[in-house]
Amino acid sequence: MNRILMKKHNFSAGPCILPPEVLKEASEAVLNFDELDLSLIEISHRSKNVVAVMDEAVALVKELLNVPEGYSILFLQGGASLQFVMTAFNLMKSENGKAAYLNTGTWSSKAIKEAKRLGEVIEVASSKDKNFNYIPKGFEIPNDVDYFHSTSNNTIFGTQIKEFPKHEAINVCDMSSDIFSREINVADFDMIYAGAQKNMGPAGATLVIVKDEILGKSGRDIPAYLDYQIHASKDSMFNTPPVFAFYVSMLTLRWLKGLGGVSEIEKINQAKADLLYNEIDRNSKFYGTAAKEDRSNMNACFLAHEGVDTETFDQMWKAAGINGLNGHRSVGGYRASMYNALPLESVQALVDVMQEFEKK
Amino acid sequence: MNRILMKKHNFSAGPCILPPEVLKEASEAVLNFDELDLSLIEISHRSKNVVAVMDEAVALVKELLNVPEGYSILFLQGGASLQFVMTAFNLMKSENGKAAYLNTGTWSSKAIKEAKRLGEVIEVASSKDKNFNYIPKGFEIPNDVDYFHSTSNNTIFGTQIKEFPKHEAINVCDMSSDIFSREINVADFDMIYAGAQKNMGPAGATLVIVKDEILGKSGRDIPAYLDYQIHASKDSMFNTPPVFAFYVSMLTLRWLKGLGGVSEIEKINQAKADLLYNEIDRNSKFYGTAAKEDRSNMNACFLAHEGVDTETFDQMWKAAGINGLNGHRSVGGYRASMYNALPLESVQALVDVMQEFEKK
Repeated sequence: MNRILMKKHNFSAGPCILPPEVLKEASEAVLNFDELDLSLIEISHRSKNVVAVMDEAVALVKELLNVPEGYSILFLQGGASLQFVMTAFNLMKSENGKAAYLNTGTWSSKAIKEAKRLGEVIEVASSKDKNFNYIPKGFEIPNDVDYFHSTSNNTIFGTQIKEFPKHEAINVCDMSSDIFSREINVADFDMIYAGAQKNMGPAGATLVIVKDEILGKSGRDIPAYLDYQIHASKDSMFNTPPVFAFYVSMLTLRWLKGLGGVSEIEKINQAKADLLYNEIDRNSKFYGTAAKEDRSNMNACFLAHEGVDTETFDQMWKAAGINGLNGHRSVGGYRASMYNALPLESVQALVDVMQEFEKK
Repeated sequence: MNRILMKKHNFSAGPCILPPEVLKEASEAVLNFDELDLSLIEISHRSKNVVAVMDEAVALVKELLNVPEGYSILFLQGGASLQFVMTAFNLMKSENGKAAYLNTGTWSSKAIKEAKRLGEVIEVASSKDKNFNYIPKGFEIPNDVDYFHSTSNNTIFGTQIKEFPKHEAINVCDMSSDIFSREINVADFDMIYAGAQKNMGPAGATLVIVKDEILGKSGRDIPAYLDYQIHASKDSMFNTPPVFAFYVSMLTLRWLKGLGGVSEIEKINQAKADLLYNEIDRNSKFYGTAAKEDRSNMNACFLAHEGVDTETFDQMWKAAGINGLNGHRSVGGYRASMYNALPLESVQALVDVMQEFEKK
C-alpha cells in the first residue's frame, strides 16, 4: 500500500496515470487471476474467465457512453494509427472515394495522410496557420463525401472540440485522448475510435464504436485484419486479443462506473481544468498557448514568459513529486495532462508550485 | 510465493505458460517500475526507462538467435494475423506479384487467403488431404516468385517442420509457435515473424526479424502502419507501443538467456517431447495424430482409442492440477502444449496420469 500512497503527481501525456485501485488489481491478476492459480496472461483467451472480461468491457462501454442499438463495440490492437488506415479501408469508396477531414493537429494530419492513399481527401479546414492553437469553425462539409473525420482532442496543442460540427455526412471521430472524459451523444457519430492509453487503460488496446449499417459498403476487398465486420462477427476475437490491455481497460471502466460514470468525471475534469487554467491566466510568469474557447480539459499547454527562470521552476515541480510536465517538442514549454485518473489534489500541487515560484 | 508454488500444470496452447519469475517481476512493475514510484503502464513510452526495455528486448533477440548484421528487429502489435497482411503488402510486387506458400494448416491457410488479395499465390504443397497431420516434402518452389512462405509449427495439428526446404526465393517464415524453442539459422531466412504468446511473452506483442535489403521493393504505396521500413526507422515506436506486452517479452527473453539460451531450452524441450511421445506410443489407451517424423516438440496431439472412457481420464488429469489439455475442435482429443516455460515435471505429471488411467 505504501507504493500507492507514495505515488507521484503523474501529468504524463500518455501512456498516462491510471487509478491506483486498477493498478493493484491488474498487478494481482498477473500473478493469480480469478483465483484460478494461473496468471491472467497465461490462459486461453477463449476460457470463460477471459470471455467474461471481454463481455464486461463491452457492456461497460455501452453503459458508460449510453451507446444506442445498432452499434458494434470492438476492442482491437494497433492504436489510433492503425485506425487511420482501417477507417479509410472500410469507409472510403473504392470508386471515386472522397472523404472530408478537419485538420487540428499532428494526429489529424497523420489520419489525412493515410486516407489520401485510398481516395480524395478534402481538408475542410485547418488550424495549421497558427501552429494548431485553435479549432477551426464555420467550415462547410460537402454533401457528397463518404465520411467526415475529426479529432476531438489534440494532446500536443491542448485544444478540444467543444461543439461538434453539424452535418449530413457519415461522422467519424478520433476520440483517443478525451473519450470517457465528458458526456457525448454517441448517436451523433457513426464511428468513434480511441487508443486506450489516456482515459481507458494501458497502451495496446484500441476501442472502436461503429454503426453496423455503415460497414460493408466501400466496395473494397479489405484485408481481414483491417475489416471491422470481421472483428465484429468474432466479438473482437478474430485473433488472439492482447488480454492484459483489454483487462486493464475493463478495470478502468469499472472504476469509472463506480465513481458515478461519465457525467461525474466530467464535473471533476472541469474542476481540475478550471483550477489550472485560472492559475495559468492569473500567474504573471506563465501564459496559455491555446485559444481560450478551445482549451482542452485534458491537456493544458502553457509557456513561461520571456526571461522567466524556467530552470528553477523545473527543479521545483520535480521536487514536488510532479512527473511528465514537459511540453511536446513542437510546442515547447509545459503540458499538464489531466486525464480521468489524475486527482484534483495533483492539480492543486502544481498550482501551489506555480504560485510559490511566482513569489520567489 | 505460495501462489507461485501452487501453480498448475499449464498445457494451454496459447496464450500459454510463462516463467513464474517473469510473472512476479511483471506483477511488481505494474505497481512500481524501476523504483520510479510509477507503474510501468502509466509512464511515457519515450521515457528512458521504457526505451531501455525496448533496447534490451532487441538486444536479447539478436543474442539469443544470433541474428546476423543487416536485419531489423521489430516489436509490433496485431499478432501473426496482421503479419499475414503486412508480409504481402511489403513483399508481393504490385506488378504481377506472385508468391509461393506451403499450406500446413489453419494459419498457413489464413496467410494464403490474405496474400491472394494482393497477387497470385502458388500453393506449392498442402497436407490438407490428411487433415494437416504431416508436413509435405519434396515440392518445387518456382524461381520467379516474390517470396516463399511457410509456417514452422502448427499448433492445432501438432506438426513441425524439422528440415526447412532449400530454395532460392526470399524466405519468409511464421514461427509464432516455436520461435526460441530450438536453434535456427536466421541467415537462412529473409524474414521471420512470430506472435509472442507462446514462447516469447503475453498476447499483444509480435516479433518481426527482417533483412533490410528485401524491403522497399514491392512498388506499393504501403499504409504507414503496415510498412516495415517505417517501423524500423522509428525503432518500433512509430506509434505508442503496447509497453506491458513488450516488457514481459523482454523479461521472458532475459529468463531464457539466464537458462543458457536457445540451445539449452532445445534440449529440455526435446526431453519433454520424448517423454510424452514415448508414453503416447506405449500407452494402449491413446495414439498420436501427427506423422511421427513431423511431430511437433511444442504441441503433442493425441486421441483416445475407440471405447476408451475419456470422461474418467478427463476427471483424472483435472484432479492432478493439469490445465488446457483439450484438443482443438478441428482435431478433437487432447493437445499437450509444451512451450519453453513448461517444466519437465508437468509433462511427468501428465504421463503419470496416463499410466494410472491405463492401469484402471
